[in-house]
Parts: sequence; C-alpha cells; structure tokens
Amino acid sequence: MNINQLREGINIALEEQVDSYCALISEIDDQLKPIANSLKEYLSQGKRFRSLFSLIGFLGAHGEITPKVFETCASLEFLQASALIHDDLMDKSDTRRGKPAMHKQFGDSAAILIGDLALVWNEKAIHDSNLANENLNQIHDIMRIELMAGQFLDVYEQTQSNFSVERSLKIARYKSGKYSIERPLHFGAALAQPKNFDEYLTIYSEYGLPLGEAFQLRDDLLGVFGNPSETGKPAGDDLREGKRTALIAFAYDRGSEETKRLIEKKLGTDDIDGLAEVILDSGAPTHVEALIEKLAEQALDAIDREELTTQARKLLTEMVSIVTKRAR
Amino acid sequence: MNINQLREGINIALEEQVDSYCALISEIDDQLKPIANSLKEYLSQGKRFRSLFSLIGFLGAHGEITPKVFETCASLEFLQASALIHDDLMDKSDTRRGKPAMHKQFGDSAAILIGDLALVWNEKAIHDSNLANENLNQIHDIMRIELMAGQFLDVYEQTQSNFSVERSLKIARYKSGKYSIERPLHFGAALAQPKNFDEYLTIYSEYGLPLGEAFQLRDDLLGVFGNPSETGKPAGDDLREGKRTALIAFAYDRGSEETKRLIEKKLGTDDIDGLAEVILDSGAPTHVEALIEKLAEQALDAIDREELTTQARKLLTEMVSIVTKRAR
Repeated sequence: MNINQLREGINIALEEQVDSYCALISEIDDQLKPIANSLKEYLSQGKRFRSLFSLIGFLGAHGEITPKVFETCASLEFLQASALIHDDLMDKSDTRRGKPAMHKQFGDSAAILIGDLALVWNEKAIHDSNLANENLNQIHDIMRIELMAGQFLDVYEQTQSNFSVERSLKIARYKSGKYSIERPLHFGAALAQPKNFDEYLTIYSEYGLPLGEAFQLRDDLLGVFGNPSETGKPAGDDLREGKRTALIAFAYDRGSEETKRLIEKKLGTDDIDGLAEVILDSGAPTHVEALIEKLAEQALDAIDREELTTQARKLLTEMVSIVTKRAR
Repeated sequence: MNINQLREGINIALEEQVDSYCALISEIDDQLKPIANSLKEYLSQGKRFRSLFSLIGFLGAHGEITPKVFETCASLEFLQASALIHDDLMDKSDTRRGKPAMHKQFGDSAAILIGDLALVWNEKAIHDSNLANENLNQIHDIMRIELMAGQFLDVYEQTQSNFSVERSLKIARYKSGKYSIERPLHFGAALAQPKNFDEYLTIYSEYGLPLGEAFQLRDDLLGVFGNPSETGKPAGDDLREGKRTALIAFAYDRGSEETKRLIEKKLGTDDIDGLAEVILDSGAPTHVEALIEKLAEQALDAIDREELTTQARKLLTEMVSIVTKRAR
C-alpha cells in the first residue's frame, strides 16, 4: 500500500465513524444537527498525518492491516480536530481549513463543547474498533497529556518577557513533534503488538523526534510565508497572533539590536508584511531551512534498521519528504 | 459499607491517582506544577455523587468491592472536574467550591486546557485500573456524549426568545440527571458484569431518571435560594448568569403577565434579590419542592426489586435523601 491508499483507507473509516456518531448525537435533539454536520465537514479535510504515522508504525512492526486497524488509527483525527478547535479558540484564529473557525460559526461556548465532544469521539472510535490493548491505551493517554502540556506551555510562553529558542523548541516538541509523529508511530507499534515492542519505540523515537521538530519548523515557516490558498489560514496569522514560534526566537536570537526592537514592536500587531521582512532579513528562514534538512537526514538515518519491514522503510522515507517539503 | 465509607474509599483512590498524574505532568516541565497543584486542590473537594452512584450500581449488581473498583469509579470525578471547569468558563462564573474558578486563576486558555487534561485523566484512571470491559466503555462514552449534548442544548437555550419548561427539563435530564445518576449506576452495573445486565440497566434507569430530575431541580433551587457558605457559589449566580433553568421556566409559565415581564427584565442582570422575590411570589419554588418529593418517591418505588442486593437498596434509599435534601 502506498501513502495515497493508506490515506484513502483512513478517509473511509473516518467517514463511517463520523456518520454513526453524528446520527447518535442528532437523535438526542434536532438542535444538535448543525453541530454534528459542522464537525462532519471539519473532519472531511486534513492531512491525516497522525493517522498515517500510526498506520505506518503498525506496518513497520509487522502488523497486518484490516478495516478495524484503519478505524483505530483514524480515531486520532478526532483528537486532532479537538485540538484544532480548542487551539483556534485560544488563539482567536478566525479561519481553519479555509473556513470560519468553529467558534466563529457557533460561539466560544459551543466551540469548547464541540472540542470536548471530538475528544470523546477519539476515545469512542478506539473502543468501537475493539483492538485496544494496555500498551496502546497508555501511549494514547501520554500522547494526549503531552499535547495538552505542550499547548499549556505555549499559552504560558506568550506571557513571558523574553524570547528563547530553547523554550520555543521544547514547546514545539511537545505540542507538535511528539504528538504528530513520534507518539502516533508508537501507537501503531502498540497496535501491532510485536514481541520486541520496546525496540520499535526506540526506533520510532529516533525517527519521530527529529522529524517532529522539522515538522513544526516547517509549520512556523508556513505560518509566516505560506500561501493562504494552500494553508487555509490568512497570511501571517502566527505574527498577528503574536505566536512565539522557534522561527521568531531564531530571528530574535540572531538579529541585531534593531531587529530585536522591531520584533518586539511588531509581533502581535497588524504589520504582518513589515515583520515578515524583518524576519527574512535576520537570516532566520535560511537557518531554519537548513535545520529542517539536517533533521530530515537524522530521521532518515534512524530507519535504516532491519526490524522495520521494507514497506514501512519506504513509507517512512516518503513521509520525510511529505512532512518537510509541504506547502500546507 | 455505608455512604461515608464509600466516599472515603473514593477519596483515597482519587488522591493516589491525582498525585501520580500531577507528578507525570510536572516532569514534563516545572511550569506545569501550578496547574497540577491547582487541579489537585480542585479534586480534593466535591460531593462525589457520580463515583458514589457508580459504586452503588456496582454493589447492587452483586459486585465485590476491591481497591481497583474504587479507582475505576473515582475516575468519574475527573470527568466532573472537566465539566465544571469548562462550564464555569462558558458561564463566566467567578467562583467554584468557594474559590476562584480555574479561568479566574489561570486565564481562559489555560482553563480550556486544564478541562481537556481532566477529561484525559478520567480515561487514564479507567485504563490504569485495568477493569474496563466493552459495556463499561460504551456506557462511559455515551455518558460523556450525553453530558456534552446537554451542555450544548443549555448554551443554545440561552439564545432562545421564549421560555419552555419542557426544553429546560430536557436539558436538565441530559446535562445533569442522566450524567449524574442514571449513567453512573449503569457504569457500576457494567463494572460488576452481572449475567442479567440489561435488567440492571432498566432498574437503574427507573430509579435514576426521576432522581436525576429531582437532583437538577434541587440544584435550580440552590442556585437561587442557596446559602453561599454552603454552595460555594455567590447567591443568585444562576440569575445573574441568566440561566434558563426549569425553575425559571416554571415561574414564567405559572406567573402573571407582570411576573413574565419582570423575569424577562431582570434575568441576567444584577437585581438578584428582586428576581428571587418574583420567583418566590410566582409559587414556582413550592411547586418545584412538591415535584422533587414526587420524583423522589418514584425513585424509591423503582428499587423495590429483588435483583438488587439488600445493601444496595439501603444505600440507594439513603442517596434519595442526600440528593434531594442537600444544602449544597
């Protein structure tokens, strides 16, 4: 199976789950139909990275794919939806996937509840697939705890008086890298239940942690220089929100006194173009591009291991390109 | 075991869980310690109704209590904490359990994340206790989905142009009655795994649905006429927030044109005393008290069943008094 086929399998499983859960909630009251439909539309899009990595983690650990495996892995899309809905509310982002964010459609309170609901659907999809085991549950729990910890550190970071590359990278690691790549791979390994489970955890961490960091750095670049028609978010959204990304921290760290002053002045304002220029001039984007390349190589080195199936090595190699070279 | 001993067992299990989860999150970063400590303090209080009902549901279905059973049932306190933290944020309530609400302590974004975290801890506690089964997972899922559906209907109700006793009671049933009493009893029955599981579901619904409605009606009365030093919430909080409770809907329904006009005018304003008087004069509180009594009798009638252990019948009888006659 290639990436597109895996993605197709995820989409099919997800659509069935969504339809059944939407029916369940609409039965409680007709007033819940708009919510259900909106979540359904929301879930019809997405890059499916977490599901893909969990599937590939499963394949790498000699798992054999069945429809139930697709269901279990697709469940992670509900978690991602929950995180995005709450994240957009916290960041006051108006747009997601080219559409008004959930809180813009239904209000802040409803967005909190819809995010909560998606978090429960994440769990329900795993229960319904009936493939959970102790390792899988533990990894799923720690994955979510790390995500929330990372999100909290991110919120906290915005209140700090100084910039820190180290802190920004740590936040990126928890809220994004571990959550998007390392833990989904672990989740897939747990689902496959190989004898040497711990070895797979190690290999997947060695691949997933650097690639996860590269993933977030690409996100940082797209947040400033991405094409809105590709990213589904307005240009410079991160800058307007005043996000202390690693990219900003690098620009600040490497920049002259004048650069530092301009970043402090413009971050969190509407002067997106001005700030983007300051960041560009600092050389940070070039530095970050080189770092992404280095991290991608580290990830590739980590999968030269005979424990992994040939198929999975191929897929993991392909994912390095997809994750680090994406435009959305 | 009597109610106090059951509550003590819940508190012990909960404290161990909280300590271990707080340690886990504090290990990720020192900045997360205040959050962990605050959640710990938050969880040290509470009436433990959901855990108690799940334990009693377990005992009624001939389950034999072990420390792991306490752990599984105590997990529901995390769900309740999550619901309250998000609820207070949505309602903009300043106080909970006599202390500043979570969003008042840490800000709105952190409150969203802390509520999410508590929801994951709910799941983790069940995983860690290792007693879950398919029925239990299904009930736990539907319990949470119903809670969120009820909460959403409540949010939606505040935007409606007219009052409706029927709608208010439906909301109360989902966000409170089913979630606080019926489903925890079902959860306990699933945990006990009796042969005639479906019969226990029926008995517990027959007891739990009327008692759940009585529970919410008592809450409505306490929200207007409760003593703040007992409830841990400022007097008339529901009125100031403009909550469309069943009590308000009854007052509106039964009231004269002048009463209707005054309710419309004063609900959601600071004129707490004035509105409380209007409600009192409408006769709604007397009506609601009589309704609570009637519902309590229905609940008591439902447990005259030989399928239930004698111990559980005694505990369920005691819980009717505790739930309907409480001052907080």
